[in-house]
Amino acid sequence: ASAVALAEAEQRQAQLTKPPGSLGALEVLANRLSAMAGRCPAPIPEPAVIGLFAGDHGVCAQGVSPWPQEVTASMVMNIAGGGAAINALARQVGASLLVTDVGVATDHPAHPAIRNRVVARGTHDFTVEPAMTRDEARAALAVGIEAAEEAIAGGARCLLTGEMGIGNTTPASALIAVFTRTRPALVTGRGAGADDQMLSVKTQVIERGLKLHQPQTDDPLGTLAAIGGLEHAALAGFILAGAAHRVPVVLDGVIACSAACVAAAFAPAVRDYLVSGHAGAEPGIRTALAHLGLQPLVDLGMRLGEGSGAAVALPMVQAAARIMAEMATFAEAGIEAGS
Amino acid sequence: ASAVALAEAEQRQAQLTKPPGSLGALEVLANRLSAMAGRCPAPIPEPAVIGLFAGDHGVCAQGVSPWPQEVTASMVMNIAGGGAAINALARQVGASLLVTDVGVATDHPAHPAIRNRVVARGTHDFTVEPAMTRDEARAALAVGIEAAEEAIAGGARCLLTGEMGIGNTTPASALIAVFTRTRPALVTGRGAGADDQMLSVKTQVIERGLKLHQPQTDDPLGTLAAIGGLEHAALAGFILAGAAHRVPVVLDGVIACSAACVAAAFAPAVRDYLVSGHAGAEPGIRTALAHLGLQPLVDLGMRLGEGSGAAVALPMVQAAARIMAEMATFAEAGIEAGS
Repeated sequence: ASAVALAEAEQRQAQLTKPPGSLGALEVLANRLSAMAGRCPAPIPEPAVIGLFAGDHGVCAQGVSPWPQEVTASMVMNIAGGGAAINALARQVGASLLVTDVGVATDHPAHPAIRNRVVARGTHDFTVEPAMTRDEARAALAVGIEAAEEAIAGGARCLLTGEMGIGNTTPASALIAVFTRTRPALVTGRGAGADDQMLSVKTQVIERGLKLHQPQTDDPLGTLAAIGGLEHAALAGFILAGAAHRVPVVLDGVIACSAACVAAAFAPAVRDYLVSGHAGAEPGIRTALAHLGLQPLVDLGMRLGEGSGAAVALPMVQAAARIMAEMATFAEAGIEAGS
Repeated sequence: ASAVALAEAEQRQAQLTKPPGSLGALEVLANRLSAMAGRCPAPIPEPAVIGLFAGDHGVCAQGVSPWPQEVTASMVMNIAGGGAAINALARQVGASLLVTDVGVATDHPAHPAIRNRVVARGTHDFTVEPAMTRDEARAALAVGIEAAEEAIAGGARCLLTGEMGIGNTTPASALIAVFTRTRPALVTGRGAGADDQMLSVKTQVIERGLKLHQPQTDDPLGTLAAIGGLEHAALAGFILAGAAHRVPVVLDGVIACSAACVAAAFAPAVRDYLVSGHAGAEPGIRTALAHLGLQPLVDLGMRLGEGSGAAVALPMVQAAARIMAEMATFAEAGIEAGS
């Protein structure tokens, strides 16, 4: 990111017709967007594309989710048909959805709204063996990179992360535990509805996985392969490619945060291009965001995933840039700045 | 608001393709919107109109703002010209602005984007005499009612509060102190940039006003006249009329919260039609929201006013309704609900 553009943005904020600092987090964000774009004012981050990646998880065999694995395929079809929460949210905020099957285990019909990039039909149970091979993890990363580059080539100027995968908060918490060097119990939550008993199982499952594979922070590909997920890998690629093209990437919840930790382990500079949309209920989110140096824009107590936490924040990201681009200065408005 | 529609909405939330409660505050809000509309799903609250009322304040003579009074007129012209933060925000979220001069003290050119409904050219200094006569307060209330009814007749299905008035956080804090029965020191803040010394002056000014006029909570018109502002009165009318037409009213910051306290003193049922957009830095906001039984949707640390805190929240209000209206049920998606 550009320190020159950042300084220029900070100077410009002080000239706009408002008390200094009175737009709070929107000012900080507008300045960051300028640094990302390397110019002030930054272009308004639109159109926006939600890259939604779906996959299944062998670790579901351990009883880490109240939902049967088949729901991943059903929800992918629901999303393709426009009936999920993310569809309504995307329509509301003017974002388009790019849905990719990177590893759904259950058969589902082909659909024009689903890109078929299946690397494997679900991961393996990481309490028994690595979730993926290194080659599979690499292929899933490439799926995410391809999606981001396709979106950007199509005009996208803002990327949002989305996902669907029954059981995918378990590998997400495992990844966050590794990359933030935090005990699993502190970064494991209830996902889509685990009760106390299931939460305890999730935590133990992650502890067993970490003990078995001994994943290392300086080997992000190996860690991803050992304890991650196909959609987590795709999202890490999506994030890396967005940042490489200097396009802001708005993170959703705990899956996106875990993928961002992986991406940051590959290339620490990706942090500069990340925006946290929504805090969410999963404890791993706060830990991951602290590791990434990010503050969430909103906290509506959501815990859905799909990209919902990124979508609700998108209008704020665009508003931050629009304010910088379109507001008059004190000089233009003929006002003497206050003390 | 309709208890039947509320119950219907709560039942419908449980059938939509998401874990129960996973959309957090958006679910609560969607249910409230159904109660407001008296039907489930509620209509999506669009188009939205920001009712922005401008006025000046005699109490500025006491040194309660770092900005000269003339800035009110300059900023009204800036808003009319499209150069203020609220203009950029309104464009971003697809809301239109209805700007009314209800009491600006300084001469300014007529402008097609400014409705001239001047009741008085600023209030009097409430440390010396009542800010307004009862007839002026009543006339300013009527200006707000007229604006809301004009917006609704024009198709508005969501109203947002906005304001501009140098010094107007002082009467806002005074009104909140009265209606929430709280000591002024606890509900008085820095407004658009008061330093410690000025904050102390503001608090003392409010204490003097309350001692002089002894405003009563069971006389909202008299209280408004004694220590309020013309734009505060207009906003109270705007809120009352929106609620009377069962249209949701999204509140901005401390000025809007103080007007909502006035409106609730006239008619407690208005609470059911209010949505708090943004928490904000002014201490009076939290106190007023607690009194009104409202939770803010976001907190970006903004302290600008103009309607900015309502505008940033508007897409969330619309998203809440859209989710309820457009999401598929588990039955429609062929999914068995999880445990």
